[in-house]
Amino acid sequence: MKNQFKLAGIALLFLFYGSLFAQDVVKYNREIWLKKAEEFKPELSKDVIQPKGIVELVEDERAFQGWTVKELGAVESIYERSFNELKTVIVDFGNHYTGYFSMNFRTLRGTPDGPLRFKLTFAEVPAELATPFDPYPGALSRAWLQDEIITVTDALSEVKLERRISGRYMKIELLGSSRYFDFAVSDLKFTAVTSVKEKPETLAESADDIIKKIDQVGLNTLKECMQTVYEDGPKRDQRLWIGDLYLESIANAVSYNNHDLTKRCLYLLAGLSDERGVVHGTVFEAPEPHPQSGQFLYDYALLFNVTLKEYFEATNDKETVSELFPVAKRQLEIINDYVQPDGIIDFEKANSEWWLFFDWKNDLHKAASVQGLSIFALSETYKLAELVDREDELKDVPELIKRMKRGSMKLYNKKINLFESGSDQQISYASQIWMILGGVLSKKESQKTLNSLLSMENAVQPGGPYMYHYFIQALVNSGMHSEAKEYLVDYWGGMVKKGADTFWEVYDPDNDYLSPYNFYPVNSYCHAWSCTPVYFIRKYPEIFQ
Amino acid sequence: MKNQFKLAGIALLFLFYGSLFAQDVVKYNREIWLKKAEEFKPELSKDVIQPKGIVELVEDERAFQGWTVKELGAVESIYERSFNELKTVIVDFGNHYTGYFSMNFRTLRGTPDGPLRFKLTFAEVPAELATPFDPYPGALSRAWLQDEIITVTDALSEVKLERRISGRYMKIELLGSSRYFDFAVSDLKFTAVTSVKEKPETLAESADDIIKKIDQVGLNTLKECMQTVYEDGPKRDQRLWIGDLYLESIANAVSYNNHDLTKRCLYLLAGLSDERGVVHGTVFEAPEPHPQSGQFLYDYALLFNVTLKEYFEATNDKETVSELFPVAKRQLEIINDYVQPDGIIDFEKANSEWWLFFDWKNDLHKAASVQGLSIFALSETYKLAELVDREDELKDVPELIKRMKRGSMKLYNKKINLFESGSDQQISYASQIWMILGGVLSKKESQKTLNSLLSMENAVQPGGPYMYHYFIQALVNSGMHSEAKEYLVDYWGGMVKKGADTFWEVYDPDNDYLSPYNFYPVNSYCHAWSCTPVYFIRKYPEIFQ
Repeated sequence: MKNQFKLAGIALLFLFYGSLFAQDVVKYNREIWLKKAEEFKPELSKDVIQPKGIVELVEDERAFQGWTVKELGAVESIYERSFNELKTVIVDFGNHYTGYFSMNFRTLRGTPDGPLRFKLTFAEVPAELATPFDPYPGALSRAWLQDEIITVTDALSEVKLERRISGRYMKIELLGSSRYFDFAVSDLKFTAVTSVKEKPETLAESADDIIKKIDQVGLNTLKECMQTVYEDGPKRDQRLWIGDLYLESIANAVSYNNHDLTKRCLYLLAGLSDERGVVHGTVFEAPEPHPQSGQFLYDYALLFNVTLKEYFEATNDKETVSELFPVAKRQLEIINDYVQPDGIIDFEKANSEWWLFFDWKNDLHKAASVQGLSIFALSETYKLAELVDREDELKDVPELIKRMKRGSMKLYNKKINLFESGSDQQISYASQIWMILGGVLSKKESQKTLNSLLSMENAVQPGGPYMYHYFIQALVNSGMHSEAKEYLVDYWGGMVKKGADTFWEVYDPDNDYLSPYNFYPVNSYCHAWSCTPVYFIRKYPEIFQ
Repeated sequence: MKNQFKLAGIALLFLFYGSLFAQDVVKYNREIWLKKAEEFKPELSKDVIQPKGIVELVEDERAFQGWTVKELGAVESIYERSFNELKTVIVDFGNHYTGYFSMNFRTLRGTPDGPLRFKLTFAEVPAELATPFDPYPGALSRAWLQDEIITVTDALSEVKLERRISGRYMKIELLGSSRYFDFAVSDLKFTAVTSVKEKPETLAESADDIIKKIDQVGLNTLKECMQTVYEDGPKRDQRLWIGDLYLESIANAVSYNNHDLTKRCLYLLAGLSDERGVVHGTVFEAPEPHPQSGQFLYDYALLFNVTLKEYFEATNDKETVSELFPVAKRQLEIINDYVQPDGIIDFEKANSEWWLFFDWKNDLHKAASVQGLSIFALSETYKLAELVDREDELKDVPELIKRMKRGSMKLYNKKINLFESGSDQQISYASQIWMILGGVLSKKESQKTLNSLLSMENAVQPGGPYMYHYFIQALVNSGMHSEAKEYLVDYWGGMVKKGADTFWEVYDPDNDYLSPYNFYPVNSYCHAWSCTPVYFIRKYPEIFQ
């Protein structure tokens, strides 16, 4: 009895100091890590894009969100035309770009004797140009919408819009001019920026056309999001979120190979972790790197570890992992705060103390997802430890994984081969997916579960591309290769067929107007977490190509 | 007979070569003069202005244009207040300033996670903030109105508005923000610019209060217009017009003594004269100095000479006059194109070939004005020639002046002692004023004429402050000193009493809403040509102080 107490005491002491150790390593190294992040801040490449042409909006109920565009001619056709008469024009840059717009003016009559006033509206998709922005019903800042009113006081010089914008189409509307002179707009230019430098390999000739197209749109999405960090969306949010980082970095590792960007982001997140050593779900770069204070996502914190592990597999960069391993260890400790003796995460407690994101899906019950993702993170982090010979620092992890896997089975309804979440025994894609990714089931069992899921009518569906990624991964992991390809082609190919130049933040094949923000023009139509077909197609060519 | 022809031939040849000479001197020196103009481009002084306080608009039918402001408190009162709640605020900078606005933000809750969108409206007078700008009915560019919509993508850094603005009041309206953080605006600043360096002498203690006030408002007007050129109005037009230059430079010569600015403007106009050597009525500085092509004003071209003469009297700068005298000579030749053997200007011809400005007054007949102003310009230019010992280059001028004065009397109705203009025998202030300034009448006759004018009910009145200046000067020249002071106090004092911080482009004591542009908010409320009380009060202290 006495000895038992003693051992428990030593164990507690060990746990306490062990914990303090990881926390302190993180705390005292943050400044160094921020400097490293700055060191690896990429120079952006600049590419001057000429407009592809002039277009007009056409209402079309079969088109995505009810609008398409019709080509009207070359951009040069407006370079000699009176803008006092033209008044409005829509320019098509031919693809989605992120960067800076500039234009010039050509005097057609008289001398510019008064300023010009324009409204410039940039759009990722046609409907953004057709939908009035005000009164604004959206839940996010109205200022994300890309309509800018500018005053041109010198119509003899180039005008550059200072705001970085993102999209394919631009509407120019004349709001003010002088009757004493006339002018044309000219030299419309878009200086596109990205931190992508390398051209990825082309796919096998034999790959399906739709796969090639999906890959291309995915690559474009990823390229657009790769700026001085992996952004979530270049139009909206424009920042580093861990969930997006994870998916972007694994797609990058099979395409653009800009591993320094991944490294920068990992250091940035580590450098901006809080006093406890917990990484924030999202951080900002300007004016100085800083986190979104208080924004802690349970699932994202643990995905930091998985990203680090994938980074190591792609680069074999032992120095970075050796520096950031304490951060990964510290994130694992989060699980300790909630795991119960039966190996089940105390969902209520975790849910009250964290934002459990997982998906944009209000009705999703996340207990099973948290359970599965925690095991996944433990397993991946342990694999990383093995790769760098530091598994002795995670001695308790294998046992914890086992216990949690055993515990997970309490959520498994063996009659229907599905995991249930919450007291309502909710059956969702998310629950099955995360349990499978956590390795709770054998490949055979996984197949059974997924097949059971696919035949269910009322299962809670994935809310969008982010969860869809994990769905495809679960199918791959379960050896359901034809289904993986089928669902990938069906979902991302659906966006392609609807005219996507880049993959969307939100996509419900049955509802073009879905928006988590109550206003679909403020959705991001070039969104990091949707780029992952690039990863699947290139990581598993035998399945997808 | 033969000899007569010979002489006429020689005279013609002489005139031709004389003309060619002045024209060529101008033509071949323009580049040199433009360089000189650049050399004397002033560094602007910068003065950081803190807001005087927060105000609200109050409708008041007794107030100028129906609106006044009420003080609400110190600006600091909003520096801690949620702008998400405040939404709109009006800042009073305490006086009229020209320059650049900047502000900062203070985070009150959360981390800025989305851009902000503001509308900033700058106003010279309160009603500009109360009158909707759209749909815009004005004749000049809508873009002159100072409402700017800005997107703030980094709410942790200072925001500077790039556009130079001008006014006293600023309305800030919040058009977009994120619900996930809250903020206050802070550090509102106005960096006021001017090329004024010197502080003018204070008036005699004994001067009337209203004279002191008028002088102060005039000085402020002049200071605001003195930028890298003498601008006509810092809010609207923002450029060098000769008519304004003339009045500003004589006011400057008795106050701020920035003679280099006058010099710069004279060189700029000379350097931008056309192929014939004629100066343009108005020129622009950006992006490179250039004239408003084709904008030739008969009266303004001749006032170039008067300005040069006044400049010499103020500075004794022989070098400048020696270089620019050919330009003055060339302008005088304009008169030769229209003066008839009887000494009368061919008004119809001049009117068809020039813009005869004189005043914003549609119904004014300008034949008598052109006649008087031409004689005035000839006389002043000849005085300048005498001052620099070059009267031999203007040998024909004294005779021409005499002939034109004689001719002028044909327009004089001796029964009523007034000059008449046009076939309708229109009687106007302008006609009498310019004939008197031209020295057509003796002092005694001038008094008779002016007294007759003042007793006339239907005479065409001055259209605004520009013509009012010449009216006061005519009273001064005629020895009608008490009337000069009375009218000055009545007219400019009227603006002061209506709350003017700077004198207005347009002022009709009986119509606050008068606008030559069909929309009074686009009027300039700080306008160069209205600053001249400064000149009168300081040039003639015995009359006005």
